[in-house]
Amino acid sequence: MSRENLISIDSARLSEDEKSVVIIDQSLLPNETVYLTLDKAEDLWEAIYTLRVRGAPSIGIFAGYAIYVLSAQTKETEFDAFYEEFKKNKEYLDSSRPTAVNLGKMLNRMEAKVLENKDKSVPEIIEILKAESIQIHRDEEDMCNIISEYGLSLVEDGFGILTHCNAGPLAGSPGFGTILYGHAKGYKFYAWVDETRPLLQGARLTSYELHKAGVDVTLICDNMASIVMKEGKVQACFVGCDRVAANGDTANKIGTSGVAILAKHYGIPMYVFCPSSTIDFNCKTGADIKIELRKPEEIKTKFYEKPMALDEIQCYNPAFDVTDAELITAIVTERGIARYPYTESFKELFGEEA
Amino acid sequence: MSRENLISIDSARLSEDEKSVVIIDQSLLPNETVYLTLDKAEDLWEAIYTLRVRGAPSIGIFAGYAIYVLSAQTKETEFDAFYEEFKKNKEYLDSSRPTAVNLGKMLNRMEAKVLENKDKSVPEIIEILKAESIQIHRDEEDMCNIISEYGLSLVEDGFGILTHCNAGPLAGSPGFGTILYGHAKGYKFYAWVDETRPLLQGARLTSYELHKAGVDVTLICDNMASIVMKEGKVQACFVGCDRVAANGDTANKIGTSGVAILAKHYGIPMYVFCPSSTIDFNCKTGADIKIELRKPEEIKTKFYEKPMALDEIQCYNPAFDVTDAELITAIVTERGIARYPYTESFKELFGEEA
Repeated sequence: MSRENLISIDSARLSEDEKSVVIIDQSLLPNETVYLTLDKAEDLWEAIYTLRVRGAPSIGIFAGYAIYVLSAQTKETEFDAFYEEFKKNKEYLDSSRPTAVNLGKMLNRMEAKVLENKDKSVPEIIEILKAESIQIHRDEEDMCNIISEYGLSLVEDGFGILTHCNAGPLAGSPGFGTILYGHAKGYKFYAWVDETRPLLQGARLTSYELHKAGVDVTLICDNMASIVMKEGKVQACFVGCDRVAANGDTANKIGTSGVAILAKHYGIPMYVFCPSSTIDFNCKTGADIKIELRKPEEIKTKFYEKPMALDEIQCYNPAFDVTDAELITAIVTERGIARYPYTESFKELFGEEA
Repeated sequence: MSRENLISIDSARLSEDEKSVVIIDQSLLPNETVYLTLDKAEDLWEAIYTLRVRGAPSIGIFAGYAIYVLSAQTKETEFDAFYEEFKKNKEYLDSSRPTAVNLGKMLNRMEAKVLENKDKSVPEIIEILKAESIQIHRDEEDMCNIISEYGLSLVEDGFGILTHCNAGPLAGSPGFGTILYGHAKGYKFYAWVDETRPLLQGARLTSYELHKAGVDVTLICDNMASIVMKEGKVQACFVGCDRVAANGDTANKIGTSGVAILAKHYGIPMYVFCPSSTIDFNCKTGADIKIELRKPEEIKTKFYEKPMALDEIQCYNPAFDVTDAELITAIVTERGIARYPYTESFKELFGEEA
């Protein structure tokens, strides 16, 4: 697959000197393209919390590099002290976005490497962590492309595809996402991009990366999804996700459940795309998924020249919502395509793991 | 009914010297409270187009005063020349918002007065137009309060009520709107206010006027309506409307059809409030309602400190959408409450007119 037509974005990578994590600051796009080189725990935490790095695969990749970079700074030489410090760093990073399952999963994968190698010296363990973090990045990248290949089997040339939030290269570091993957293979898609309030990932990131790659993109406000579906402009809805429960209930960017209900109403298929690491078999249903509540200022003041509501107005600002499994046409993973009822479908795909 | 607890807002009125229309500039709320005194055709047109005055009843009231003010400036003394000029002004004002039925209706009501009195002198006709414009204002005000009384019969104390856009005193000049009307009568409501992108009437106007009046208000982004409904926080959805077709299909602020589909999904009643002048029996169904497409800049740049999408990104910006009649639980007018199927229900309420 040639990437010539595509923007080259690595949303998280290790620095040349392997002492820092380099990210493109997604909070400044599309107006500024700024790369940040991070090596302090607080800065790494803040980068996730403020969505400078975001998207399930990208957060997972970032988490691997971040915990490696912090581990490499240790002054400890004994395993127990090193491991205590590691756990503290891990817990701290993990607290930055409670709904993002990949964050915890990749931190656990790194911790497993530490424990597997407890009889080795601390410098040896640190080398192993570096190799593991790079491997996480490669694995996530491969997975994104396999997912895109599966995704392409669900659509046809000429489809209008409505997306919510961002699940392209910026989220996948640098996995394609199905729309770009298909575009690179010569498919013509019409992308309808929800702006995705309050933080506008659709307007700022998705319309940016698709447009740069030459896809036909139209930006809409979130509340315009209904009219474009009604007008027959949309043949499929594509979203990523942050956490999928064992029954297929899916937590994703706030507003996703609304898109799914509209899609069902208009008879349009609703597809969720995720690496299988996003499926949390410890969560029975969506009711077990903790939804992050964010600051009211994101609704009232952020991005605006002037406050858009009185300062004293109370806001409710959930970052995610849960889409009930029966509203989801298919969940597309690197291991195959699952369909409702998901508990059974996941068993077929994942066997014992599910 | 005492209005002591309420904000006193007259969104459109005649100036003291009766030569201009005075409005509160709704485009500057909630940050600045600026009253504009308008007497030029271009300024009056612009006030509607840029939503300085908005809301179906307020636009109707404004239109009556506006055409009177322009008529009073005439230099013509012969009826035919005066009427030609009147028609030119009327057509010009009418072009400012094609979807707003009240605009055309109230202009037609004023034109009827001109034609009824063609045998009178131009100064006499102008006096008649003044009286008629004041009567329109009174009639609309009375109607808003009757509508609110009907609306109150549909809800209970303690209800969570989700609103989209603005249909309170700023829209009704100065009709209460049912939430404030109930609040003044001692009902406790929990108002969930959609911010209503792109122009944020919910954030800027509805949360403002409800909060000022002491109602418990929570502001949400449009895409959060699904989660608050799912969480059981909403017992009824309230919207105004800009034009209702003979079958009940309802054009209102973009996003209303989405709210209706979500409400149906969650089993929550969806109520539309309107003066009966908003029902357009010449429109058979929603398919006959012309939807205004507005500038992409409202999505891409308006209100924002920095552009929120690349300048070259294409946007789709319909100002309204049509909610299918079967998604609407009831349409509340000053003549009574209509229910599906509306063609029949309207006949019962309006007889021959329907």
